Amino acid sequence: MRVLVIGANGEVGHLVVQQLLSVGDEPIAGIRPDEPDEDWRDREIAVERLNLLAKPERLAQGMLGADAIIFAAGSGGRTKDDMTLLIDLDGAVKSMQAAEIAGVRRFIMLSMLFTEDRNRWADPLKPLYVAKFYADDWLVHRTHLIYTIVQPGALSFHAGTGRVKSDPLAVGSISRADVAAFMVAALHAPQARRKTIPLLSGDQSIAAVLQNL
Amino acid sequence: MRVLVIGANGEVGHLVVQQLLSVGDEPIAGIRPDEPDEDWRDREIAVERLNLLAKPERLAQGMLGADAIIFAAGSGGRTKDDMTLLIDLDGAVKSMQAAEIAGVRRFIMLSMLFTEDRNRWADPLKPLYVAKFYADDWLVHRTHLIYTIVQPGALSFHAGTGRVKSDPLAVGSISRADVAAFMVAALHAPQARRKTIPLLSGDQSIAAVLQNL
Repeated sequence: MRVLVIGANGEVGHLVVQQLLSVGDEPIAGIRPDEPDEDWRDREIAVERLNLLAKPERLAQGMLGADAIIFAAGSGGRTKDDMTLLIDLDGAVKSMQAAEIAGVRRFIMLSMLFTEDRNRWADPLKPLYVAKFYADDWLVHRTHLIYTIVQPGALSFHAGTGRVKSDPLAVGSISRADVAAFMVAALHAPQARRKTIPLLSGDQSIAAVLQNL
Repeated sequence: MRVLVIGANGEVGHLVVQQLLSVGDEPIAGIRPDEPDEDWRDREIAVERLNLLAKPERLAQGMLGADAIIFAAGSGGRTKDDMTLLIDLDGAVKSMQAAEIAGVRRFIMLSMLFTEDRNRWADPLKPLYVAKFYADDWLVHRTHLIYTIVQPGALSFHAGTGRVKSDPLAVGSISRADVAAFMVAALHAPQARRKTIPLLSGDQSIAAVLQNL
């Protein structure tokens, strides 16, 4: 499967590309126009430059021929220059609109735990929660994409364990590697279609969690 | 009609309260918890303190008994402290959710010209356009409120003329007084229900424009 990873130079996106390679998918590294691409070129991985500040019609050109999109881009909490609004919200929604224009129906979204529960939105992440909430809502209610929204807890840099849990009431953390592995596995799991999935480190295999959705 | 004006101390909101009084409606001045209220108290106008950073359930308490809501609040372009996200987007949507909780079905929204056309979004207002776009979209697609979205061009402080036009392709300005008069007239016009209305100064009466929607 040809999978465009938006935000491939990001902390999760980079691991998603690795994971796609390791399971035999064909990743396309989606990066910003101003980002370095040597890392990908050296390894003969296709690169697609995408400007999330551009219009959906322009973004769609970079999506043609992809079978699926994994959205792992983020402003990195740069709220000062409005990037939370322009990237985490509008950039995400424009990517969804672009996917529909380009005819790419499968869309995996990297979100955050508790985006749909305002009672859980705490400073300093509150603006990011707002952006993620409306982006997730758009994906579910305002597109016809076959979505999967993955909502991990606090992200760690620990090594992946392959052991997770999906409990809507639990709080906790999970490694970026396990999030990446889960997103790629979700791409191939029919049960994950049109699901919003909270995700923490746990004691079940990723396959078992996907099977029980 | 008892009409809660959210943002009554704002430049448009203040004029909306005046206009409601002049047509015989009963305004309730919705202001922030930290704002002065002497101006309203001195004139025996009811005041409701609303914190748009609070939860919808809390906001709903301040809406009980109102027949309609006119939303004229705004962050004033304070993007630096994330108020565009927290007030212009999430504060607006929470007000809609609160209206539904409180059983107030009529909701008039002060928006901006061209919010639904990204090609028209220009700096430095781009973040505000993003916020307004998603707030308007929520009102239309994610509530059952009987909405009217008023989308004025550039706001001036000129005196009201009572002469306007609604042309989706035109660019221009309009006085805050005419916007306020239009919003109050829209409240009483069945033709304005579930409509999104671009608004500029022009040569038609407000009644004629509403009649021809």
